[in-house]
Amino acid sequence: MVGETTTPAHTVRSYDQDLQRLRDMVARMGGLAERQVADATAALVRRDTELAEEVVRRDAQIDQLERDIEAFCVRLLALRQPMAQDLRLIVGAMRISHALERIGDYARNAAKRAIVLAGLPPIGSLNGFERMARLVQENLKGAMDALVHDDAARADEVWAADEPVDEIYNGIFREMLTHMMEDPRNITAATHLLFIAKNLERIGDHTTNIAEMVHYAVRGDTLPEDRPKADTSVSAVVRPPEG
Amino acid sequence: MVGETTTPAHTVRSYDQDLQRLRDMVARMGGLAERQVADATAALVRRDTELAEEVVRRDAQIDQLERDIEAFCVRLLALRQPMAQDLRLIVGAMRISHALERIGDYARNAAKRAIVLAGLPPIGSLNGFERMARLVQENLKGAMDALVHDDAARADEVWAADEPVDEIYNGIFREMLTHMMEDPRNITAATHLLFIAKNLERIGDHTTNIAEMVHYAVRGDTLPEDRPKADTSVSAVVRPPEG
Repeated sequence: MVGETTTPAHTVRSYDQDLQRLRDMVARMGGLAERQVADATAALVRRDTELAEEVVRRDAQIDQLERDIEAFCVRLLALRQPMAQDLRLIVGAMRISHALERIGDYARNAAKRAIVLAGLPPIGSLNGFERMARLVQENLKGAMDALVHDDAARADEVWAADEPVDEIYNGIFREMLTHMMEDPRNITAATHLLFIAKNLERIGDHTTNIAEMVHYAVRGDTLPEDRPKADTSVSAVVRPPEG
Repeated sequence: MVGETTTPAHTVRSYDQDLQRLRDMVARMGGLAERQVADATAALVRRDTELAEEVVRRDAQIDQLERDIEAFCVRLLALRQPMAQDLRLIVGAMRISHALERIGDYARNAAKRAIVLAGLPPIGSLNGFERMARLVQENLKGAMDALVHDDAARADEVWAADEPVDEIYNGIFREMLTHMMEDPRNITAATHLLFIAKNLERIGDHTTNIAEMVHYAVRGDTLPEDRPKADTSVSAVVRPPEG
């Protein structure tokens, strides 16, 4: 009858190992997403279509990881009947892996556009894109560190750090519209660049959401609803030069 | 000892009621998302800033419903320790509500841009936007019906029906670039319209994903990985008119 009230030590250990394995799977997926963002941006800036094609191909790995994580979570829910913090970790892992899949998708989309852009005349500087990508990668790495180390304070830092990403995006938005107005031959390239900038901005948003999910998984409470948010391009009006 | 192996009837009934309540909550959220898409598009076409502002305000209701659904799911997981199809329904409900929240976000974003556009000179016809919105709404309704009636076949129909949405989007993409090239004064408005079209296209994608999640919740297997997909705008090159 003892077996009914106490859990054998090896079961507990293997459950802990399962949860650790889950954290590792999500962190690996995060690392892959980070790399996709870095490589998509490098491909854009260096006009490297080969690298861009590699990013497009590698997206299938991220999709597969999401399916693996979800299947593993459903198994854990069914077999372990987890409670409290463990349950939050499992639910959080599913949501985080879904957000990482979206990030992977945006990176692949940016890479596809980078291939088209390599065949068009270059316009302006792409520094803004590099800065956005670097910030987003740092935040993504911070969110994954917070998850692996159960560190809610680190997650909160990332959550509050999206504003510079939005500011760079707003700058790029205006810059691209100005290029279009100056010369209609810029319009196709500037449009693709606008969408890439929007992809990076969305990746930044998803990273903020991930930080929020990590906070919830670790602490069990939610962050205030309104985070710092500064994408003003949605109401931007840029006028063509006079004459 | 009988109480340990058989479950009292009232517990089972209340569990079934819980699952039905969950389906209803998700369906209500779906209905709200549908309405947001319809109203955002109507606000755009009719240049109705009041309606657009209402859409922006109403988004908070969708966000609240997502939080309610997630909290309810976590409680069901912890208290009911569901297995097999029930577990899939609960996991599916969390994922679907997240996708609906994204759809609400895209509708709000479109409404914000509709407010700006009402202050700019109109360009071209907005028929394409109306057609896209109508198709997306029908699909969203179909996916919610499939969920409420446990109807995998209906979900599969929706899953296969996103192609026309992508085709209209590709047409709008080229049309907007042409407007920009014809007259630089169109550039700001055409850019906002491009992003609204992209929002509708993303809403269509999320709807397809929801259909996939409904299929999984009902049947337990997943659909083939590559669904019909026809957004070719990602590699579109539009040339300005000669001379």
